[in-house]
Amino acid sequence: MPDTVKRYFPILEWGRTYDRTTATNDLVAAAIVTVMLIPQSLAYALLAGLPPEMGLYASILPLVLYALFGTSRALAVGPVAVVSLMTAAAIGKVSADGGIDAVTAAITLAFMSGLFLIGLGLLRLGFLANFLSHPVISGFITASGLVIATSQLKHVLGVTAEGDTLPALVASIAAHIGEANPYTIAIGLGSLAFLFWVRRGLKPLLGRFGVPARAADIATKAAPIAAVAVTTLVAWGFDLGARGVKLVGAVPQGLPPLTLPSFAPDLWAGLAMSAVLISIIGFVESVSVAQTLAARKRQRIDLDQELVGLGASNIGAGMGGGYPVTGGFARSVVNFDAGAETPAAGAFTAVGIALATVFLTPLLFYLPQATLAATIIVAVLSLVDFSMLRRTWRYAKADFAAVAVTILLTLGLGVEAGVSSGVVLSVLIHLYKTSRPHMAVVGRVPGSEHFRNVLRHKVETDPTVLSVRVDESLYFANARHLEDRIYDMVAGRPELKHVVLMCSAVNAIDMSALESLEAINERLDALGVRFHLSEVKGPVMDRLMRTDFPDHLTGEVFLSQHDAMRALASGPPETPQQQAATQ
Amino acid sequence: MPDTVKRYFPILEWGRTYDRTTATNDLVAAAIVTVMLIPQSLAYALLAGLPPEMGLYASILPLVLYALFGTSRALAVGPVAVVSLMTAAAIGKVSADGGIDAVTAAITLAFMSGLFLIGLGLLRLGFLANFLSHPVISGFITASGLVIATSQLKHVLGVTAEGDTLPALVASIAAHIGEANPYTIAIGLGSLAFLFWVRRGLKPLLGRFGVPARAADIATKAAPIAAVAVTTLVAWGFDLGARGVKLVGAVPQGLPPLTLPSFAPDLWAGLAMSAVLISIIGFVESVSVAQTLAARKRQRIDLDQELVGLGASNIGAGMGGGYPVTGGFARSVVNFDAGAETPAAGAFTAVGIALATVFLTPLLFYLPQATLAATIIVAVLSLVDFSMLRRTWRYAKADFAAVAVTILLTLGLGVEAGVSSGVVLSVLIHLYKTSRPHMAVVGRVPGSEHFRNVLRHKVETDPTVLSVRVDESLYFANARHLEDRIYDMVAGRPELKHVVLMCSAVNAIDMSALESLEAINERLDALGVRFHLSEVKGPVMDRLMRTDFPDHLTGEVFLSQHDAMRALASGPPETPQQQAATQ
Repeated sequence: MPDTVKRYFPILEWGRTYDRTTATNDLVAAAIVTVMLIPQSLAYALLAGLPPEMGLYASILPLVLYALFGTSRALAVGPVAVVSLMTAAAIGKVSADGGIDAVTAAITLAFMSGLFLIGLGLLRLGFLANFLSHPVISGFITASGLVIATSQLKHVLGVTAEGDTLPALVASIAAHIGEANPYTIAIGLGSLAFLFWVRRGLKPLLGRFGVPARAADIATKAAPIAAVAVTTLVAWGFDLGARGVKLVGAVPQGLPPLTLPSFAPDLWAGLAMSAVLISIIGFVESVSVAQTLAARKRQRIDLDQELVGLGASNIGAGMGGGYPVTGGFARSVVNFDAGAETPAAGAFTAVGIALATVFLTPLLFYLPQATLAATIIVAVLSLVDFSMLRRTWRYAKADFAAVAVTILLTLGLGVEAGVSSGVVLSVLIHLYKTSRPHMAVVGRVPGSEHFRNVLRHKVETDPTVLSVRVDESLYFANARHLEDRIYDMVAGRPELKHVVLMCSAVNAIDMSALESLEAINERLDALGVRFHLSEVKGPVMDRLMRTDFPDHLTGEVFLSQHDAMRALASGPPETPQQQAATQ
Repeated sequence: MPDTVKRYFPILEWGRTYDRTTATNDLVAAAIVTVMLIPQSLAYALLAGLPPEMGLYASILPLVLYALFGTSRALAVGPVAVVSLMTAAAIGKVSADGGIDAVTAAITLAFMSGLFLIGLGLLRLGFLANFLSHPVISGFITASGLVIATSQLKHVLGVTAEGDTLPALVASIAAHIGEANPYTIAIGLGSLAFLFWVRRGLKPLLGRFGVPARAADIATKAAPIAAVAVTTLVAWGFDLGARGVKLVGAVPQGLPPLTLPSFAPDLWAGLAMSAVLISIIGFVESVSVAQTLAARKRQRIDLDQELVGLGASNIGAGMGGGYPVTGGFARSVVNFDAGAETPAAGAFTAVGIALATVFLTPLLFYLPQATLAATIIVAVLSLVDFSMLRRTWRYAKADFAAVAVTILLTLGLGVEAGVSSGVVLSVLIHLYKTSRPHMAVVGRVPGSEHFRNVLRHKVETDPTVLSVRVDESLYFANARHLEDRIYDMVAGRPELKHVVLMCSAVNAIDMSALESLEAINERLDALGVRFHLSEVKGPVMDRLMRTDFPDHLTGEVFLSQHDAMRALASGPPETPQQQAATQ
């Protein structure tokens, strides 16, 4: 079978060795993940402002398609918190403008995101995910977690509140606090307290009763289903719906419908930017999880094929009544810990969720929304982590600035503005740093062939030769700076006859920098100074040889700085003491 | 006087030594530039879709303000072709939407651009201009020149045509070609032929009559005024206005009015992006000219103060009935060649243009628009230069892609889309290149302390030690690639005990890369392999010492790769032959 076919269908690889043992392991993992995924799917659909069944639908077809196309053995795909919040923001934008219904917008968004991801994958652009720096991702996740937790407070309190940003949400909740419903608060805070206790206290407790650590872990992760079951019973028993507690209500029973996205150009234009951001954020989140888990078993993730896998999942979400999905952190870890060995576990999970849509939906009628909100709050608060602020502050102020701006803008202007600014800022900071490269005048360490910074070492120089080392690749952002610095160094040294640019740290020279070198060569020529290069790396020299720059160069290209000084020095070298006297 | 005051008012520096000789030189230059600037100002106002007097107004107050705040001795500020075209596009956008009148929009645009430039200057962000790579600027200028020349064809033919892009303009002109007016064509093509002949033939002719080269040059530059005078007389004598030739018509006589920009938030929002792009493009064009001229006299340009100077000029344009201005190439060269010595020449030019608005405007009534269009076409076609395509194709395909995309998008989607995409593409290409740094496994050159690529040189290695050199600073865009490559190199080498990362070409490590190093360290530890660094540069090491990374590091940080190998090697080195056998 040709390798390209295998690359696009990883199932052909792992499917060949699939046996009964692997199937049993996958089935056990699938059962556990299904139990965890039911309340989560409902809750995230609520967060996205969509009917609860869409959360379940988003956990069926996408999982099957990821099993076919994905490369991670343990990744569990489905609705996740951040992408749900971004979906809510995107839907809000187009429905405020054009009166599009939320369901159509969500389906279309998933479909567009799928096309975009597959496109990136086929173009082999997986590396783009690397442009999100760790600090930006960390700041974005933390701030999103806070926004999500705050947005869910309204369900816990039983008030109506709106807003995409932290200040708007807080103001809106404060304005409506009078509407708070005591029964809702009891259910909401009760669930919150239970879920927090499970996180902190259940595992040690189970440990004391001799339950193995892994089983205790899984029990902890399954706690939300207990909260769902108990609060549903309570809401049914005490008829809390009649007392103002908002319930999930009627959920259509049956398998997901076949849906088609809208192809209205206005809607596509309105959603395009959101689809791109959701795809990238989703991809980065998914890949981080997949790589972490793959590393534990010495497996590898193919970034470009992952794009295809996630793209197919999102197309599936769009065709099967869902909304944008990606690989989730918590559920993937549970899947891995429960022993999932192949993507088939995902397909089995899809069967489990499909069974739930057929048989369990009537039971969800009395499920309080406050319970779902509590599960979201507990899940996202675990993502909030401000330690990156402290760490970057100590390590590099530029990275600190990127985290701080990302957090502030995500809280203050919303998720899309936050993550976009973070990316732009990271790139600008990087360009700024490389736009002013470190440049050092160098001299020879006496008795050696080594050349070092004259400001840091006692070295020998020659009054007619200026040797400059530049510690960065030369490209458009630093080309002009290079020119300026060299002109500055040459100014007021009439005895100068040679300038040698030592290129040992120059890994590339782009067209802009080449033009700057030409300009330097010309300008120095007008001053009667010859311009030389030394220690040019092989690939850089190969490229220069393709131009007429070497013909115009007034000086030479020396293999080593030592060769350059031997050829150019006018007499015995100046000692450090003489140098100090002339400076 | 404090230096900061001097920095913001360069006039205090050159004003102190201003004497009669300098004044005479400046006056002569000003007279010549005035003659050149009158038809140019009228023509560019026409190109911007504004009343002709606005071009004159834009050449008065801005020049005075640049004389006060600018640092270039020879730069001539005023309306220029590309910025006029961008102004036309920006005005078109807001007047299509909101029905704002063009004059108010242009004044507001100049004012906003001025504020933005001054803001950048005070924040000392002049370096941002470096983010426009030479190839992108070159492609943008060439494509803009073609769009401008095509847009002026309608005036030469006497047809109505609309569009911001080359295809739209060509289609529109073709659709209206039936309306062409023979008298207009005669004037237009006549002027074009005359102006092209002047460029090619006048200078040699004058040379044969013994006119000095510099005077011949200036006569060539003043030719448009002759075309203007002759065609105005012809239009008046033959009453061409009555025969369908479009004339400039009534131009208000008198000094520019004091104008105020609109402060309507909608208008500011609509113009914001255009103001930013016009400012940056204008600044880059202006600085290139100023630096070229300053270099000829060994003078220096202060980028940040230039921002303030151009900003003040644009505020002046907004207050004095003008539209966005910048330093123009042709006129600055004329100013320089005519002997201008200080920015006072610009102030004298302003007086000349002011006199023209008072005394000459009635004479402009019969000036055919076709003549002005011809002067524009001749001026901009000299900017069209496709050689950059050929040069970049040979030198670096990435740079070629940036030029080609900039040209195609500027022609096809308009100036703003073209230049924005060019900048984004340059940055993406740079990030892409640095995101996959060159990495080499190195070994010791026998009998030396040098370590070289095992693939290129016959070197000695040790089976238990893997030494890897990475030829790029480590940052977010290449951090993950570094991890992947190291894991790949380690895979399937169970005898490995040490990995040494040789950092001689690593000029910086950002937070993302630090986290990757931590991940590598942890992962190698799990495999029983120790992770070491060698040849870490001083500033990079200082920063690492502020973190707990050195405490977690399973290996050591060696000053040199030679030290590392001496400490880690398990026995006698493998020769190149043995190596080949094990590979």
